[in-house]
Amino acid sequence: MTPDAPAPFRVGLLGHGTVGSAVAELLPESADAIAHVTGLRPEISGVLTRSRGDFDEILAGSDLIVEVMGGTDDARTYVTRAIEAGKHVVTANKQLLAEHGEELWALAREHRVQLRFEAAVAGVVPVIRVLQESLTGHPVERLHGIVNGTTNFILTQMAATGASYEEALAEAQQLGYAEADPTDDVTGKDAAAKMAILARLAFDTPVHLSDVPYEGIAHLTTEDIEYARDLDLSLRLIGTAERIGDELAVRVHPAFLYKGHPLASVEGPFNAVTIESPAITEITLSGPGAGGPQTATAVIGDVISAMIPPAQTPPTRNTLGFVDDVASSFYLHVEVADKPGVLAQVAQVLGLQGVSVKSVVQKGTGTGARLVLVVHPVLESRFYGAVQLIAAKDFVTAPPRAIRVIDEEFAG
Amino acid sequence: MTPDAPAPFRVGLLGHGTVGSAVAELLPESADAIAHVTGLRPEISGVLTRSRGDFDEILAGSDLIVEVMGGTDDARTYVTRAIEAGKHVVTANKQLLAEHGEELWALAREHRVQLRFEAAVAGVVPVIRVLQESLTGHPVERLHGIVNGTTNFILTQMAATGASYEEALAEAQQLGYAEADPTDDVTGKDAAAKMAILARLAFDTPVHLSDVPYEGIAHLTTEDIEYARDLDLSLRLIGTAERIGDELAVRVHPAFLYKGHPLASVEGPFNAVTIESPAITEITLSGPGAGGPQTATAVIGDVISAMIPPAQTPPTRNTLGFVDDVASSFYLHVEVADKPGVLAQVAQVLGLQGVSVKSVVQKGTGTGARLVLVVHPVLESRFYGAVQLIAAKDFVTAPPRAIRVIDEEFAG
Repeated sequence: MTPDAPAPFRVGLLGHGTVGSAVAELLPESADAIAHVTGLRPEISGVLTRSRGDFDEILAGSDLIVEVMGGTDDARTYVTRAIEAGKHVVTANKQLLAEHGEELWALAREHRVQLRFEAAVAGVVPVIRVLQESLTGHPVERLHGIVNGTTNFILTQMAATGASYEEALAEAQQLGYAEADPTDDVTGKDAAAKMAILARLAFDTPVHLSDVPYEGIAHLTTEDIEYARDLDLSLRLIGTAERIGDELAVRVHPAFLYKGHPLASVEGPFNAVTIESPAITEITLSGPGAGGPQTATAVIGDVISAMIPPAQTPPTRNTLGFVDDVASSFYLHVEVADKPGVLAQVAQVLGLQGVSVKSVVQKGTGTGARLVLVVHPVLESRFYGAVQLIAAKDFVTAPPRAIRVIDEEFAG
Repeated sequence: MTPDAPAPFRVGLLGHGTVGSAVAELLPESADAIAHVTGLRPEISGVLTRSRGDFDEILAGSDLIVEVMGGTDDARTYVTRAIEAGKHVVTANKQLLAEHGEELWALAREHRVQLRFEAAVAGVVPVIRVLQESLTGHPVERLHGIVNGTTNFILTQMAATGASYEEALAEAQQLGYAEADPTDDVTGKDAAAKMAILARLAFDTPVHLSDVPYEGIAHLTTEDIEYARDLDLSLRLIGTAERIGDELAVRVHPAFLYKGHPLASVEGPFNAVTIESPAITEITLSGPGAGGPQTATAVIGDVISAMIPPAQTPPTRNTLGFVDDVASSFYLHVEVADKPGVLAQVAQVLGLQGVSVKSVVQKGTGTGARLVLVVHPVLESRFYGAVQLIAAKDFVTAPPRAIRVIDEEFAG
């Protein structure tokens, strides 16, 4: 926004595991975009790992400390010292906050620094931000969460393939969705820590990890999953936090969800949280719950928020043109006289226009016969050209109808 | 946080329709909670309607202006004047921003005030906050949205009941999900304005309403919806914004979604947005897209954000106890010897413990027979008591297995 080079904003990084190394890689890549928004250019001022780096030196040379080392001993000491030194802190450490959150949040208020922790719960799914900012002042009634991607992957695999718990766990480990020692995940302890943090924010009352009873998933059988499917139920490891009169119930346990529940369709290593409150009815947030780059994205979002408190809409940086012909997949409905060669002629027109058929259903007979096709993505001009040619055929008895189809081509 | 009474924060309200009156009602109710977080106590300093109130007087007596009057003429004048007077502005006016956003955002930057607009897109679903804050610095690849609740209600009704477009629209109007003049909704224009705003934020390039071609839903037939169901497709009015090379395609049109798509399960008057980006894979936000209290909640969230830029975690206000016996619905799996009276005995034990059966499936024969039951919510102590009694029966051949069931009891 100013013609001068933006001033640096020094970020000290504690931890260089999956998340730490992703932060170290992604932050410099985003530095220009962040400088555009904040007027400050973030840079990594130092990295502390088990074998290298000096905390005091990093602290002295940083405006903000990112703690992604995990554990509750050293992490607690370092976060405390950073806050006492007047530095903002961004952490992804759920155990630290579930055990020592009140103490650290109080310290941050006292020293007037920010202690942000979006990445501690549900990775890049912005549930902390929503609870702290969007819903301030609105009483939450209940919160359900799938907050552990490892167990969600295992349970959806068991349901999809009939694999046993042990087999699904082994697959999760192979794919990097479960750690070599999966105890914290499969016992529900990891989810319990996250639910303690969410309940604390949602109900504005202290919640410690020890207040959250939890059950794991190791005892679950494929048989139960299959029976339950007949009842339209799907199995998930669910964290629940709800107010019951003047008391709170916060728990983690396996639970069946009816098909209509917004969490029932959350598959694989994804996380999702549903927040119910009279004022908002219910909102659901879902997305990848873990992964280095995803969690790092949440960390960097927090860094940016700490850099520039008043959110403004900065001027645009791009001036992109607008595409006028895009590729789409289409559904096409054609009413035809049911005589030999009709499908072949339709297919030929489509083929000549470069339109490739994905599936076709033929229904009815006589003059009221119908062809219903879904075609693979193709430039819309080409597709509509083919439709015009088809419409002109003598066997077509009514104007064809075309509707776009959005493919399930993405990562979820 | 201080023992003194919090200073007032004066909110001037332009508009007193569905959203405006909900803001006027909800803001005072949340005032204590907001004062706790921000140190300032919000109060309505004046209300401008078509028939009463004086804008100049309200402006002079306010720290922040909430614009929920709609339209693009007076609204533009008032928002401009509020910003020029150095007041923060919160608006729910998508047409205003889709047509004059760049001018107003530039003015807000110039005068160093906040112009917030979470409520302009997808009601209380915090998609603006997520795009502006969580994802700053991360290139978005594509965004799909169901951003109009009226059309989503109509299309899901057509699919669920076989009603025609006209019938479903009439029902939407009866239920208050569609206005007497539904033109802006059913033509896609309302959704196009929202997509212009989302695309502007996601791709950091100016997007005007006129850059967004749109198609409506009035021509859609129940027949197409039914054929498509055979192909596992469900029909929605979808806004799409995607970068294709150095150009942008932003459009609104009806589209079929494959079952696995996160938006395919969004039913009724709900809104949802899926954001795809390499760093985050994909996140989905969903919730009620309209409604007075819901939209007002989004407005108030913006007011709070404008009041206290640096987000802190305030001390808790409650000290709730923890419930140790909660009511849950359960799935119960019992292996039994298949002889007469087994189901009756199980049902009797459950009945005596006050456990009410919702559904039951009996499978297999001989010693490997199984009873699979789902019971209505009951205190867990009672349920587990009943399970213990059942486990002790001589016809039970293996330890019963119980798993909680989460009911679809909420509003969605």
